[in-house]
This record gives sequence, C-alpha cells and structure tokens, in this order.
Amino acid sequence: MPDDPALTSFHAIIPAGGAGTRLWPLSRASRPKFLLDLDGSGRSLLQQTWDRLVDLIPAERIHVVTGTAHAGAIGEQLPELTSLIVEPSPRDSMPAIGLAAAIISATDPDAIVGSFAADHVIDDQIGFTEAIRQAVAVAQEGLISTIGITPTGPSTAFGYIEAGKLLDVDGAPSARAISRFVEKPDETTAATYVADGDHSWNGGMFITRTQVLLDHLARLQPGLHEGLTRIASAWHQPNRQAVLDTVWPSLTQIAIDHAIAEPVSLEGGMAMVPGSFSWDDLGDFAALQDVGAASSPGTVWVDADGLTIAEDGTTVAVVGLHDVIVVRTVDATLVTTREHAQRVKEVVSALKDRGRDDLV
Amino acid sequence: MPDDPALTSFHAIIPAGGAGTRLWPLSRASRPKFLLDLDGSGRSLLQQTWDRLVDLIPAERIHVVTGTAHAGAIGEQLPELTSLIVEPSPRDSMPAIGLAAAIISATDPDAIVGSFAADHVIDDQIGFTEAIRQAVAVAQEGLISTIGITPTGPSTAFGYIEAGKLLDVDGAPSARAISRFVEKPDETTAATYVADGDHSWNGGMFITRTQVLLDHLARLQPGLHEGLTRIASAWHQPNRQAVLDTVWPSLTQIAIDHAIAEPVSLEGGMAMVPGSFSWDDLGDFAALQDVGAASSPGTVWVDADGLTIAEDGTTVAVVGLHDVIVVRTVDATLVTTREHAQRVKEVVSALKDRGRDDLV
Repeated sequence: MPDDPALTSFHAIIPAGGAGTRLWPLSRASRPKFLLDLDGSGRSLLQQTWDRLVDLIPAERIHVVTGTAHAGAIGEQLPELTSLIVEPSPRDSMPAIGLAAAIISATDPDAIVGSFAADHVIDDQIGFTEAIRQAVAVAQEGLISTIGITPTGPSTAFGYIEAGKLLDVDGAPSARAISRFVEKPDETTAATYVADGDHSWNGGMFITRTQVLLDHLARLQPGLHEGLTRIASAWHQPNRQAVLDTVWPSLTQIAIDHAIAEPVSLEGGMAMVPGSFSWDDLGDFAALQDVGAASSPGTVWVDADGLTIAEDGTTVAVVGLHDVIVVRTVDATLVTTREHAQRVKEVVSALKDRGRDDLV
Repeated sequence: MPDDPALTSFHAIIPAGGAGTRLWPLSRASRPKFLLDLDGSGRSLLQQTWDRLVDLIPAERIHVVTGTAHAGAIGEQLPELTSLIVEPSPRDSMPAIGLAAAIISATDPDAIVGSFAADHVIDDQIGFTEAIRQAVAVAQEGLISTIGITPTGPSTAFGYIEAGKLLDVDGAPSARAISRFVEKPDETTAATYVADGDHSWNGGMFITRTQVLLDHLARLQPGLHEGLTRIASAWHQPNRQAVLDTVWPSLTQIAIDHAIAEPVSLEGGMAMVPGSFSWDDLGDFAALQDVGAASSPGTVWVDADGLTIAEDGTTVAVVGLHDVIVVRTVDATLVTTREHAQRVKEVVSALKDRGRDDLV
C-alpha cells in the first residue's frame, strides 16, 4: 500500500520523452516507445512505470513531464494521473526534471524526488521498492542517490557506475559513494567491470531532496536554474503559460547526467544503491528479445532464428538467417540482426534526410 | 511477321502449370508465377512467352494447357488465345504436352510442335527465333530437338545438356546430337561443364513432329499414349468432357524430361540447337535479381544490399545484412539471402503442414 512512512515526502517524476529511434518502425515520433506495449504485457512501458510507482506512493505524488504531442495519449493511458507537466518543446532531461522538482519544491520544500525513465522495464517490485527506500534514506542526508543495477553480463549497451567506499547511512546499508560514471564500454572493458564487483549499470534513476538538486543546479547551471525558478513561481498563477512560452525556449538543452550527475559525482556528492532486480532500458530490438519478447505467432523458421514482430498479424518466414530481427508495421518493414540492432537509428536518420517525416 | 515459310507447320504448346513455390510469397497456388509480372515489364511471364511466339506464328497455332483454376485468368491475360486446353487436374508436363500434341496431330498430322514453359524469361528475340528455326529444321528430320542455352556461368540451379557430334542438317548448321541430360550439378562440376564447351543449360524447350513424339510415347509410355489418344479423338465430339473426366485421372503423372527426353537421348534420337540468347527460368529470388529486378523504391540500405520487393508499396529498411532478400505481400513477409533462395519452397511445405492453405 502506498503509505510507507519512509516515503511520506517522496515524489516521483517521470520524464516521458524520446522517440526510441532504435526501435523503429514500432516506435515513431508520433508513437514513442513509452506509449507502446513492447513486451506484450498489455500495459505500455509508461503504464508499467506508473504501476511500479503507484505501489509505493499515492498517485497525487507522481508527476509526468512530456511534450504537447503526447499529453493527450498519456492522459488516456494514465487516468489516475493528476500532475501532468507539459513542456512546450523538448529540452532534454535536465529542464524537464528540474521544472518538476522546482514545482514540487514550491509547495513541499522538504520533498524528496526520484526521476524514473518512462520506458524501462523492471521485473522485481520487491527489489525495486527496497532499493528506492535505501536511496531515499541516502537522499535525506543531502546526497543525490542513484540505483546501480547489478550486471548480469558484460553489456556494451549501458553506461556504468563505478562505486567507491561503503557509506554509513541509517536505512541504507548497501549505499556506496560513486567514484565516477563511465560511458558504454567495449566488450573487453565491460567484462572487467562485471568481474571487479565495483561497477554496475546506470539505471538512470536519480533520487534527491529537491533543495539539494536545485542548489547544485544554481551552482552548475545558473541560467537554467533561474529560468526554471521563474517558471515554477508562475506555475499556479494565471500567467503560467505566458512565462512558460517565454522562458522555456531559452533554457539550456542538457541531460541530467551531464548537468548534475557527472560533476556532482566527482565532488563526492553522489551515492549508489545496488539494485539486483532485473532491469532493461529496451534500447534496441536485441534488448527486447532479451527481456523475453516472443516472435510473432505463426512465424516460419527454416534454418533460422531470431525475433519477428508483425504488428498487423501477418505471417513472417525466415530462411537461413540467424539472430535476425524482422519488424513489420502497416507502413514499413525492418530487417536487421541482433548484432546491428543499435544501428536501426541510422534508418531513421536516412528517412529524415529523404524528407520521409511520415515514417519517422 | 508470323508467316515465316520455315515455320508454316509449326505450332507452339505452352504448358502453364506449377505454383513456383520458391517465389513465395509472391507466387501462390492461386496466383502462380506465370501470371505474375515479376520483372516489372508490365507483362506477365505468360504474356511475355506469348509475345515471343506470336512474333513467329499466328495466334491460332499457339496452344495453352492449364488447370481449371487458372483458365479464367489466362483468358483475361491472353485475349487473342483461341486454343486453351483445360486439364481436369495436374499430371505434370508429359500428359499436358502430349494431349496438346495429339489434338494438333488429329487435324494436322504433319505438324511440328514446340513446347515452351510459361514462366521463363528470354531477352533476345532474334536469337530465339534463329534457334527455333534451326530446331524446326532438325525436327523435320525426325529428331526431337531442344535448345541448349549457352551458359554464362557455372550455375547450379539448372540441368545441363551434354552435346555430342555436330549433325549435318539443312537449315540447322549448329545442331548437335545430345549425349545425355544431366541433373543440376554442384559448383565444381558446373565449372568443368562451362569450361568444356560441350554442356549447355536445359532450357526446357522441346521441338518435334507430333507423330515422332506420339510414336515415342506409344513405345515408352503405352498406357499414357492410349489414354491421350482416346481423349484427343473425342476432343471435337460432344463427349469430350465425359472422356476427359474418365480418362485423365488415370494417366501417368510424369515430366516430359523423364518420359521422353532422357530415354530418347540415350537412343540417339535427340538433338540440341545452341541458343546464345539470354534466358532464365526465374527459379528463385536470386534469379529474379540476376535478371535485373529492381528493389522496392525508397528502400533504406544501411551497410546492406540485396533485393527488396514490397507489393503494397510500403518502405523496407535493411541494416547490416548483405545479399538479403526481403519480400512483403499484403499477408506475408519473407526474409532470406541469395544463398538460401532455393530453400524458400520449404516455407511453403511448412505452411501446408500447418494447414495454412490460405497462404500457399
């Protein structure tokens, strides 16, 4: 039940943006990854994110930030949602999360916020809840905490967190300092990361007191902080839209990783709580297969294997190709392999170059 | 103009059967290969076969043999056709060609017939005409002649003809005896065939006096000969259909290659006229690409190449696969490679096994 005393001041922020170009042609600008039921569960990735959070805290403390294009679809998918923050244009994750934090902070200065991607999958609710409880306990101490996913293999598709010494925080026995964040490694480096026990996958979750976040922002990105503060102070005023429309386009477009997480980690201001639950960001079709997505019913494999998705229910047949990925929508067909799954975004670039905005 | 004095007694027979399972999903039982415009010329393979022949002889001397299922479509595609012989069920090529020959022989005992597959492509009308003229001259002498296509490479997709000594036939300076027919070879054997100059591809064309064909048939397949004679004698009688329905199902199901060409070649009764024109039986999608079929407009290749066909005009994208073949119809998608193109028929077998007769 969502009345955990350890989480009374906890709010969740879900930035719902990004098209997921590596999942084209399923994912489109008009139908982004987070709105899709990619794992056949009957719930979109956004709905699954909501389900995980509403198990922890009341719906009123869950805030979704999205663009104008998807506000309607999100309202339909999440009928219990009360706080939908609509950004006039995409400025990456820092303005989105920062605005939500500033709005929450204005009415609840002691709030702790956690940001959660709208399009990740997590299988173990108990493990997730336990990690969040520890991360909130760490955030109470003034650190920004994140969840470090215990690697199940040497993935080259994720960024890694390098952990430092164990912290001594009440209610967070597993929390460690963060030495640094590292970019997606090559396979050899990934293998050493998995072996050394000090590296975990960056699950992209950040948990912090709003005031701590805003103070870091004021210091590291003062212009952005000032703009967000102006918008937040007008949020419950009649001039909200006017201020938003004026200020928003001037905000620095930057991800929270670069704006806050990386610099603050180097200052010793970030902590990592290990999460041993099953997690994936479904970054490409190989990841989709890894989380158990089933091939289209009736697929004919002749000396072949892989993943097929036929959105229109038609039959797919593959002859003599292994680890193949075939995705058919009403207007497009993609054929690739697990090995090249990350390069699907190049198709979207090529289509844009050709002016085929109807397809991207 | 179709009044060549060398061809006054020449009739053409086009057995139009076979689904072309290696061209699934384009080719279906209900929409066989010969009815399709596979090379984008605007004419189906059957229509192209017709065009080649009607350039040589009057339409009245072109006879198409087909099953009940396709009689209507053939009538629509060939409005000038006057002789459509409808077989009640498929019994392979010997009964089809034999029946046409027997019917032609009944009204024109001196006729020479040539049988031509309905679904092959030939590019050089002048070379084709020259080869047919020589083949007819050879047939006048009582031999069964065939066209041996001069190989352009060591194909393993075709049967080969091994030629013997040069014959000395008026009007057929290139004609040679046939030593034997050989099955599709492996690549090494094919290379020796191409190198020795004595082997050519079996283009599946047979040219013969009807009486010579029927005499061989009476000797080698007496039951089949007797049945065909009974049907032919009733052909212009009121009881045609009754006799056809009674006798046809009892006829031996056999290809003309096995019934006549192979045994007669071993007796020295067959001749080969070289044809150096461009020819292909479009046996699979690799062959279709080889004859110049263009990929679907708008295909996106990212580190990839091959052949794409999207019948519904949708966009195909391929990432990181070479020599790939992607075929999309309204109800199915096939993905394979040039190397495995011959195995596409296994998809059709698998679909039949699953009871998916709607797809084959």
